[in-house]
Amino acid sequence: MKSEYMLEALKFAKNAFNDGEIPVGAVIVKNDKIIATGENHREKKNNALSHAEIEAINNACKALGSWRLDGCTMYVTLEPCMMCMGAIINSRLDTLVFGAYDTRAGCADSLVNSKSLLSSEKPEIYGGIMEEKCEKILKDFFDVVRNSGNRKAENS
Amino acid sequence: MKSEYMLEALKFAKNAFNDGEIPVGAVIVKNDKIIATGENHREKKNNALSHAEIEAINNACKALGSWRLDGCTMYVTLEPCMMCMGAIINSRLDTLVFGAYDTRAGCADSLVNSKSLLSSEKPEIYGGIMEEKCEKILKDFFDVVRNSGNRKAENS
Repeated sequence: MKSEYMLEALKFAKNAFNDGEIPVGAVIVKNDKIIATGENHREKKNNALSHAEIEAINNACKALGSWRLDGCTMYVTLEPCMMCMGAIINSRLDTLVFGAYDTRAGCADSLVNSKSLLSSEKPEIYGGIMEEKCEKILKDFFDVVRNSGNRKAENS
Repeated sequence: MKSEYMLEALKFAKNAFNDGEIPVGAVIVKNDKIIATGENHREKKNNALSHAEIEAINNACKALGSWRLDGCTMYVTLEPCMMCMGAIINSRLDTLVFGAYDTRAGCADSLVNSKSLLSSEKPEIYGGIMEEKCEKILKDFFDVVRNSGNRKAENS
């Protein structure tokens, strides 16, 4: 696990922030190299699937030409929701590293530990990595949303 | 709820069968009209995301130009896995109608009722619709796989 990869994921979260999206970013690493990235683009793409993790998994499958992401680690700035956690398990990622906990909808550890629920061997899960930085970008985003009176993006 | 739409979903499951994929098909209906379809293509597309439900949601979001699938019903031949159930909840589909139960990995009712877990109002869920037909195509597929000695597709 390397903090530099969470810093990279934070760059993609920042891109999402600049696009007016809830700022979540992800990178997928294999053999110490980033092979895929993703950022939340639900509003821009008008697509419920366009979470950072789904975009990163989609890009990783294309990069490797395989639905199995063996040997891969995902770094994502926010704890995955149920859809994304299911996708992470389905794609056989070895390791999941996430930053901020999502106590409302997180399905890696907070609301439920999906890996235990599905009796899945993979992935190994590490939560709360660079937690303060990952929480701060979300807090900053929702402060901007509240101050601008635009509550659309809050309905995640 | 109309059985004709489950028959349509079964046609897409049959397409998947003919492509050597685990036969699952889905259609999304709005205002009594099919607006999107999907079939399992994980092997063909080498993509862990390419379940029938994900393809159908992706196509429905594109068709409606919206990430919110309000007023829509999904008909799918097999109970959704965790990834797909999360996507169904995220996309705010009104209703989910599924055929066969998946006692191993189904996250609409069997392994877990994800809607209750997430305290989500949507979707309404109806399971076991045209269950025998939906189970039969899966049984037929795995019989073919076993008889041919090709066990790749069994590792779902």
